Amino acid sequence: MPLVQPSIASAAPAPTIDIRTATCADHRPTPYLLLDVDRAVEHHRQLAAALPGTAVHYAVKANPDPVLLRALAGAGSRFDVASPAEVAAVLRAGATVSDLVYSNPVKKRSDIATAASLGVRLFVVDSLEETEKVAEAAPGTAILARLATSGAGSDWSLSRKYGCSELEALAILRAADRLGLEAAGLSFHVGSQQRDPRAWDAPIAAAARVFARAERLGLAPRLLDLGGGFPAGLEGDCPPLAEYGAAIDMALTAHFGDQHPETLIEPGRAVVADAGILVCTVIAVLRRGSRRWVYLDAGVFTGLVETLDEAIRYPLLTSADGGPTGPCVLAGPTCDSADVLYERTPVELPLRLSEGDTVRLLSAGAYTTCYSTVGFNGFAPLATVLTG
Amino acid sequence: MPLVQPSIASAAPAPTIDIRTATCADHRPTPYLLLDVDRAVEHHRQLAAALPGTAVHYAVKANPDPVLLRALAGAGSRFDVASPAEVAAVLRAGATVSDLVYSNPVKKRSDIATAASLGVRLFVVDSLEETEKVAEAAPGTAILARLATSGAGSDWSLSRKYGCSELEALAILRAADRLGLEAAGLSFHVGSQQRDPRAWDAPIAAAARVFARAERLGLAPRLLDLGGGFPAGLEGDCPPLAEYGAAIDMALTAHFGDQHPETLIEPGRAVVADAGILVCTVIAVLRRGSRRWVYLDAGVFTGLVETLDEAIRYPLLTSADGGPTGPCVLAGPTCDSADVLYERTPVELPLRLSEGDTVRLLSAGAYTTCYSTVGFNGFAPLATVLTG
Repeated sequence: MPLVQPSIASAAPAPTIDIRTATCADHRPTPYLLLDVDRAVEHHRQLAAALPGTAVHYAVKANPDPVLLRALAGAGSRFDVASPAEVAAVLRAGATVSDLVYSNPVKKRSDIATAASLGVRLFVVDSLEETEKVAEAAPGTAILARLATSGAGSDWSLSRKYGCSELEALAILRAADRLGLEAAGLSFHVGSQQRDPRAWDAPIAAAARVFARAERLGLAPRLLDLGGGFPAGLEGDCPPLAEYGAAIDMALTAHFGDQHPETLIEPGRAVVADAGILVCTVIAVLRRGSRRWVYLDAGVFTGLVETLDEAIRYPLLTSADGGPTGPCVLAGPTCDSADVLYERTPVELPLRLSEGDTVRLLSAGAYTTCYSTVGFNGFAPLATVLTG
Repeated sequence: MPLVQPSIASAAPAPTIDIRTATCADHRPTPYLLLDVDRAVEHHRQLAAALPGTAVHYAVKANPDPVLLRALAGAGSRFDVASPAEVAAVLRAGATVSDLVYSNPVKKRSDIATAASLGVRLFVVDSLEETEKVAEAAPGTAILARLATSGAGSDWSLSRKYGCSELEALAILRAADRLGLEAAGLSFHVGSQQRDPRAWDAPIAAAARVFARAERLGLAPRLLDLGGGFPAGLEGDCPPLAEYGAAIDMALTAHFGDQHPETLIEPGRAVVADAGILVCTVIAVLRRGSRRWVYLDAGVFTGLVETLDEAIRYPLLTSADGGPTGPCVLAGPTCDSADVLYERTPVELPLRLSEGDTVRLLSAGAYTTCYSTVGFNGFAPLATVLTG
């Protein structure tokens, strides 16, 4: 199962339209996600260029749109999957099954068996119990042990729920080998929308220690999954992608010397977030006490779950931009009190914004359509409209 | 548009099976919601009996299952709807359109027009702007002005996002009358899963003040929507339903004297929560540091959004019950760190609980199937299985 760099030299050129202002020809009813598939492919190419020699596995969970998956597969992308349905989706899109990493660390036994029957050969685990499950349900395959990280520097830490210590990782690799699995290496995740390129250093150092100890035990770990967390253009500054590539390369050299392991990354948000705009309409602008409330026809239950706790802040454009602005609370259309996007830290919107104006949430291509409810309050799930 | 008490004397008798332990004959794969429609109808009957003379409008948003809606309509239920799709759903289920209240206070203008074209005649508003919208999009219909409440005593307050002051309500009623609408009365909502029957007293007092002032201005408000908030059997004690009925009746008499207005309630959770059990399976039981983590095949993105902030706590039964128990963190199946149900306050589960055991979340009939995502991580939306 060699992990070579996918061919992306022939990827489509960057799109020429500006999706920040592009409109749909058919003026369809809002809300919808305006998705520029070519732009996502371009982001994939940029990530591959920033990390030469590292395989780029698109994290399907971020946006499983079938046209997007087909375009990415066509451009040589590999994939990070979390369920048998995601395996089937990328295979339908033309992916090669040996190019998949099944990265959900805690899995249903029957899901492991189904994925293996579809040809998946690489699973992430973070416990001895999961290692035994994989050995039983997918004998002869390979595993990566997932190390816990601090998550510091990220907008959304991922390591409370998953990840093990260095000692546990070593025990997992030994158990895998004993159980007839390939103890292929390690994985980690520095947290979603990670703003600090140096965040990769500590887990790479930890991985190098585990690799060294594993090698002394006669094992041959070869692969390091550097996870996702590469940022999109949400609010708040991030360094350019090249700094992430340089910091990761420097960390690999510092801790592994000249013998870098094979590496892969699992970007989701960094590929597709900036390729999507959530287009919605102002339902009402109301005064509530001293505050101005703006109600949109999209909300927490139609794709904007990531605004819960106001962790993820989407840049906003409106059809009323240009004049003076003022703070306002932003709310969704359902009659649920939890359907409020930004209240603790209000957003600045034009004072002349009113019913019927269009609001565009930028960098909304990731974790929106897939987070949408099936139809809470009778409002349809967030639709996707492709540009171009 | 008379609002008479629906006929529920002929409602089906209470079911004889105990859905806490009932199983499906076909042993279908978990997770699913096991829904006892007869039990929901019985809860509807109990609510009507606890509040004689008050019309019971089932809040469709809590669970729009078509079989459930048909059973409730057949038992004489009225309905509380939040969107044109919910109007269409209850009409398909056999509801009478004059028995609907469209209670979403902030609506898209086109949605008001669609609802009116389907025959809806009663809309809730909480601002002059919305009143003007209804007058324009649904001329000649009736409105209720929604008063803000404190939400104190409830598990989930609903009044940050909606509701106006007494003075604003009076202005809305006057505007409605001037715009050719019927200024039918007022509504309020004391917050979801309200544990204190006295919570209705202050808003009923406020409503009586607004009614009196409106009458002095020559208006004839006649209808008071007492909202929802009646509790289900979630964790934490609540008084019996009869105490809610008695407290509300006492408040109406204290503030309106012998001339009670027409009244309606909008229960969702109190009708359907205790009629549903979310049946799921343990994927893994793992030690993470000092804590035991139990991973289920249902989670935040397959219907359990109400566990966010751990506000709603479902009673739990497992197939391993009976022996000693210990605290554990409860998590869902997606590889999203937000997919953790209870962590700050762990749940007590059997020490012998292990992979493959069944876990039943009780009182899960409301706000689960409808809150489910379209398929995050490739996991299917929560299915409904009917008992009996």
